[in-house]
Amino acid sequence: MSVSASRPALDDPIGIAVIGAGYWGPNLVRNFQATPSFRLRRLCDLDVERAQRVLGAYSTVQVTADLDEVLADPDVHAVAIATPAGTHLPVAMAALRAGKHVLVEKPLAATMAEGRELVGEAASRGLTLMCDHTYCYTPAVLRIRELLHAGELGDLHFLDSVRINLGLVQRDIDVVWDLAPHDLSILDFVLPPAIRPVAVAAHGADGIGAGRACVAYLTLQLSSGAIAHIHVNWLSPVKVRTAIFGGSKRTLVWDDLNPSQRLAIYDRGVDVASPDELGDEQRRDILISYRSGDMVAPALTEREALRTMVEEFGRAITTGTPALTDGRSGLRVLEILQAASRSLAEGGTMIKLDEGQLA
Amino acid sequence: MSVSASRPALDDPIGIAVIGAGYWGPNLVRNFQATPSFRLRRLCDLDVERAQRVLGAYSTVQVTADLDEVLADPDVHAVAIATPAGTHLPVAMAALRAGKHVLVEKPLAATMAEGRELVGEAASRGLTLMCDHTYCYTPAVLRIRELLHAGELGDLHFLDSVRINLGLVQRDIDVVWDLAPHDLSILDFVLPPAIRPVAVAAHGADGIGAGRACVAYLTLQLSSGAIAHIHVNWLSPVKVRTAIFGGSKRTLVWDDLNPSQRLAIYDRGVDVASPDELGDEQRRDILISYRSGDMVAPALTEREALRTMVEEFGRAITTGTPALTDGRSGLRVLEILQAASRSLAEGGTMIKLDEGQLA
Amino acid sequence: MSVSASRPALDDPIGIAVIGAGYWGPNLVRNFQATPSFRLRRLCDLDVERAQRVLGAYSTVQVTADLDEVLADPDVHAVAIATPAGTHLPVAMAALRAGKHVLVEKPLAATMAEGRELVGEAASRGLTLMCDHTYCYTPAVLRIRELLHAGELGDLHFLDSVRINLGLVQRDIDVVWDLAPHDLSILDFVLPPAIRPVAVAAHGADGIGAGRACVAYLTLQLSSGAIAHIHVNWLSPVKVRTAIFGGSKRTLVWDDLNPSQRLAIYDRGVDVASPDELGDEQRRDILISYRSGDMVAPALTEREALRTMVEEFGRAITTGTPALTDGRSGLRVLEILQAASRSLAEGGTMIKLDEGQLA
Amino acid sequence: MSVSASRPALDDPIGIAVIGAGYWGPNLVRNFQATPSFRLRRLCDLDVERAQRVLGAYSTVQVTADLDEVLADPDVHAVAIATPAGTHLPVAMAALRAGKHVLVEKPLAATMAEGRELVGEAASRGLTLMCDHTYCYTPAVLRIRELLHAGELGDLHFLDSVRINLGLVQRDIDVVWDLAPHDLSILDFVLPPAIRPVAVAAHGADGIGAGRACVAYLTLQLSSGAIAHIHVNWLSPVKVRTAIFGGSKRTLVWDDLNPSQRLAIYDRGVDVASPDELGDEQRRDILISYRSGDMVAPALTEREALRTMVEEFGRAITTGTPALTDGRSGLRVLEILQAASRSLAEGGTMIKLDEGQLA
Repeated sequence: MSVSASRPALDDPIGIAVIGAGYWGPNLVRNFQATPSFRLRRLCDLDVERAQRVLGAYSTVQVTADLDEVLADPDVHAVAIATPAGTHLPVAMAALRAGKHVLVEKPLAATMAEGRELVGEAASRGLTLMCDHTYCYTPAVLRIRELLHAGELGDLHFLDSVRINLGLVQRDIDVVWDLAPHDLSILDFVLPPAIRPVAVAAHGADGIGAGRACVAYLTLQLSSGAIAHIHVNWLSPVKVRTAIFGGSKRTLVWDDLNPSQRLAIYDRGVDVASPDELGDEQRRDILISYRSGDMVAPALTEREALRTMVEEFGRAITTGTPALTDGRSGLRVLEILQAASRSLAEGGTMIKLDEGQLA
Repeated sequence: MSVSASRPALDDPIGIAVIGAGYWGPNLVRNFQATPSFRLRRLCDLDVERAQRVLGAYSTVQVTADLDEVLADPDVHAVAIATPAGTHLPVAMAALRAGKHVLVEKPLAATMAEGRELVGEAASRGLTLMCDHTYCYTPAVLRIRELLHAGELGDLHFLDSVRINLGLVQRDIDVVWDLAPHDLSILDFVLPPAIRPVAVAAHGADGIGAGRACVAYLTLQLSSGAIAHIHVNWLSPVKVRTAIFGGSKRTLVWDDLNPSQRLAIYDRGVDVASPDELGDEQRRDILISYRSGDMVAPALTEREALRTMVEEFGRAITTGTPALTDGRSGLRVLEILQAASRSLAEGGTMIKLDEGQLA
Repeated sequence: MSVSASRPALDDPIGIAVIGAGYWGPNLVRNFQATPSFRLRRLCDLDVERAQRVLGAYSTVQVTADLDEVLADPDVHAVAIATPAGTHLPVAMAALRAGKHVLVEKPLAATMAEGRELVGEAASRGLTLMCDHTYCYTPAVLRIRELLHAGELGDLHFLDSVRINLGLVQRDIDVVWDLAPHDLSILDFVLPPAIRPVAVAAHGADGIGAGRACVAYLTLQLSSGAIAHIHVNWLSPVKVRTAIFGGSKRTLVWDDLNPSQRLAIYDRGVDVASPDELGDEQRRDILISYRSGDMVAPALTEREALRTMVEEFGRAITTGTPALTDGRSGLRVLEILQAASRSLAEGGTMIKLDEGQLA
Repeated sequence: MSVSASRPALDDPIGIAVIGAGYWGPNLVRNFQATPSFRLRRLCDLDVERAQRVLGAYSTVQVTADLDEVLADPDVHAVAIATPAGTHLPVAMAALRAGKHVLVEKPLAATMAEGRELVGEAASRGLTLMCDHTYCYTPAVLRIRELLHAGELGDLHFLDSVRINLGLVQRDIDVVWDLAPHDLSILDFVLPPAIRPVAVAAHGADGIGAGRACVAYLTLQLSSGAIAHIHVNWLSPVKVRTAIFGGSKRTLVWDDLNPSQRLAIYDRGVDVASPDELGDEQRRDILISYRSGDMVAPALTEREALRTMVEEFGRAITTGTPALTDGRSGLRVLEILQAASRSLAEGGTMIKLDEGQLA
């Protein structure tokens, strides 16, 4: 099948099929339906009743359990895969081979080797391969990216990310593979191109006898000498989703669960006075203070990240240029996840990342 | 000089001298003056004008620059040392040898070896040696200790402590030695006696070219298999002081900067359902939830921690029993600090703690 | 047309039509589609393109601009009216006369007289007339109702409600008619049956020359002697939606914009000590405290209020019993709104409410 | 006694005596001692033991129960009166007649007539008469005053102030006289000179059978047409101290209990779009938003308000110019309190204020 098959006629919407009607699929279904540049053709799941329930009683969208049927449909130009990670390789590979553009849930694949196969296949066929790193498309993260790329914070000195969830322990993967892809894909997305992670160490604990880490801490060395630290945790009765980006000029605090003030940018960076230059009185003043420097909380328009992500998938297909979170970004995230797993197994050793492998 | 010299006559207040009128000394002066079981005799500082400024224009307390004079005064039964850590050994040792009970600012001494000398000297003379781990005497930490000792949280699975300060970079010590003593002394204070830290790893970054770590992360393995993690940071425009204690029955969140709700105890521990047992709908419900289980925020009386600490010093002297934060607890904190420094220098190696040395 | 026409066959879903595809209609469309006890038959709007946009490109639901056609359809057993308040009387009356059960957006009608006509018509025909007081069906308000009806707070002493919105100034109504129906319907919903508002005074200000009040304060006297106060405001850059229910045994704080802690119940009621019984020291302690008494924040399941409201409409139709927010509750809210308008015009006079009129 | 007696020799500190060692006196004692421009000479209380306890065991300050003795002392140039409001007239009048400058706790006196006597006496003798409106001297209120006087918010459209306290019911006064002086003095302090309150209405409730209002709401009409509303409440388990200043250019939110962000200034004023100009989609976007416009939270130095107040008292004495919160400001607050009491007694009538009386 030729690549041209994957392009709709000029100005026509892109025909899309969603594969997988489980936890995440319904969100994709809803957003593709609401996006004019796409036309949802089919929803595919082995359990057709589940797929029908997702569509509801009023839908004209077709349901099928047969992937081959989907891939054979010339009106389907692209597929969005929301199946378990272990199935990403065969499903996505079949789609690429059928000339379809592919959107894959995070993580891109179960291993780097598998991910590399997909990236290679898409590249050789000139097809769009995109990873659904949803958080990257939130208004807050898009703004953080702008600010960091424009150097508004000065040099980045540290990044501290905390993602604590409500105790939904996964069966097949540990907390690092479940939650850290969010933080790692955000890091990949917002860092200025010149700065890359070069090594990672991970510590974790099982705690509840789940058989895999339920709490974990990742420490990344960045090529600039800065440090990035990620705390992921399943075992919490409260949600926390905050990140601090400490720069030489300004420091940014992102609190994703505070909708009236998701981003706060503090004027004062980390170039601070030493107490030697301060009298006792001044030192005391600083220590009883709660904050230094003015803070600006920019207004952000609330917009569903998935809608923006879906539009970016359309843009990438239409223009033939890489998506902001393309397969390669998915691969970079996979590399860090694999290295973190190795570090975890070795009790916290710092593991070097070799981006050469990704070329 | 006999130990009896260090006891006031029955029911008389304990004569106390404060050594050091710098940053912390004034707080000790104020609290000893406000505590009936003590009688503040002298304030000693090499800079007598500074000492006089601390006392103000209306005080009857004597000022001196001469430590020997203080130690020779039979009405001085105890001294409180608020001088730089490097001077703790000679000053405290002289005081102990003069038969005075001793309170020392954190850290107990500059090294474990020095700390061990002090502990030995106090023990052999039957004198009280106490470490001013102020945070342990806050109403919140005292309550946390009660709850953990009574098993109210069930088994402790993880502790996550964050202490982010307003960019006051110290000249002579790194952020671990500056801030982590607070978290480590709290950990030492609240853990049930059967559980002890057995190893520590530390990662850090300088960032601003200060010549020592300004951001650091400590990971402690506890003897029970639980994990404790401490984030200390000088480079922040906002203060954060929170700790999460995750237990099998309940989870406790301490937010020291939220006076109306410093402690929040969540009914739900970490013994959570696996998503396998849940349908897609339930899983979605959990993921859109912000919290699970009822929460109780106990009322805490506001009370200055230093006042309680000073009273505990008085109690220990009067009864001849160890203070809650005695020299040995200071020594345990020192051991972890030293191991953390070694780990930091070695790039994050996990360093075993040897409590045998402390015996 | 007989009333029996408004009942579906046993166990069949209730055929429903939504009238009005403007701001609120889409929410009704979505929720009726998701509720098994209903079958959405038609969406009716004078602007059929707008109605079609609301349904999207994948829907089997019929669109029409012709209300008569809808009312003539025997498969339509009920209608949900989301048109401007001024049209509620003719549209709802036509529907009732056609034997349809009716759900109406708040306010029930433009005037009490109109509302009374609708209530009378529905009663005489034995049809369900329900007012969509959405907030009453949030998990938080349902819980507040339970607590107040069960006497868990003791006697209610005061209610203070604040609803500050993001500057969306309405053209045809003032802020009292736009926002206060929410607070008044909640008040009507949660108060124990023995307690009723007996008088209302209102103060307001235009401020921006909008030609009608943009900020307003309502003070209600309750039959028990308690006070209820409502602050509604269009002129704010921040949203606030809180209410405090002060009781003799407990006090409840509802913060609708804090999803992790919407409800907080404080053990301490208002039966407090007088300072005469306290020494200066105790008085000082209280004044520096931030809170008294333990607090419990019950876990609430997140659920869309509109879904619960739609189910209650179904329940009322099926059982032939009044809905929790039936036409009469809409009428009680209208009475207070009209009295508040009169008070506003008279500069804040306290206006007596005459529930006798409602009988 | 001549007025010259009330001036210390050039550059010498002002001799001050504090009258009253009850709840507030100790704060004055501490701050006068810490302020170089004053020299605390005496602490006067009928209960000399209480006065001695306030000074502590280490003070050189003299204690006395004899007011005449204090007023006869030529080294006492000024007195600070912290006795119950009912005693302000005789004590302050005696002090003025003895040629002493006078600082009085709020309220200035028990009635306007008494307050007017004091203002007249001080004016005729050329002595400083100042009211301790402490809140006006907080860094936050000083900043609000600057912003409002400089027109930074544009025209003020509304002010909404909430002061909810922890259930400390007073015996002799109602909640209006206990708490509203804070809000009214702040209002007096921050309003640009051209704008004045012209009328006030008050509603209240007793609730707990205390025999006087425990919850009250004051509505003030300002000369500019703007509205100011004050909610004071003794019956709360949580403290709230917030005020919103809505302006045509910007809106300011003051949250006095959020030390890391006491002031937040929102770019967007109240000059908002009407929904008529918006499509349904835009209207929906606004309604799901939590905020509009950027926000700036200026850094404020933490400083004890009482220290600044005491310095202002010194400045007023030394320069012979009125204090920022002089007797006349105390009188303006008294006028509103009296009018509010009358309104409360009359069931909420709007009472006109007659500033002519104050001239």
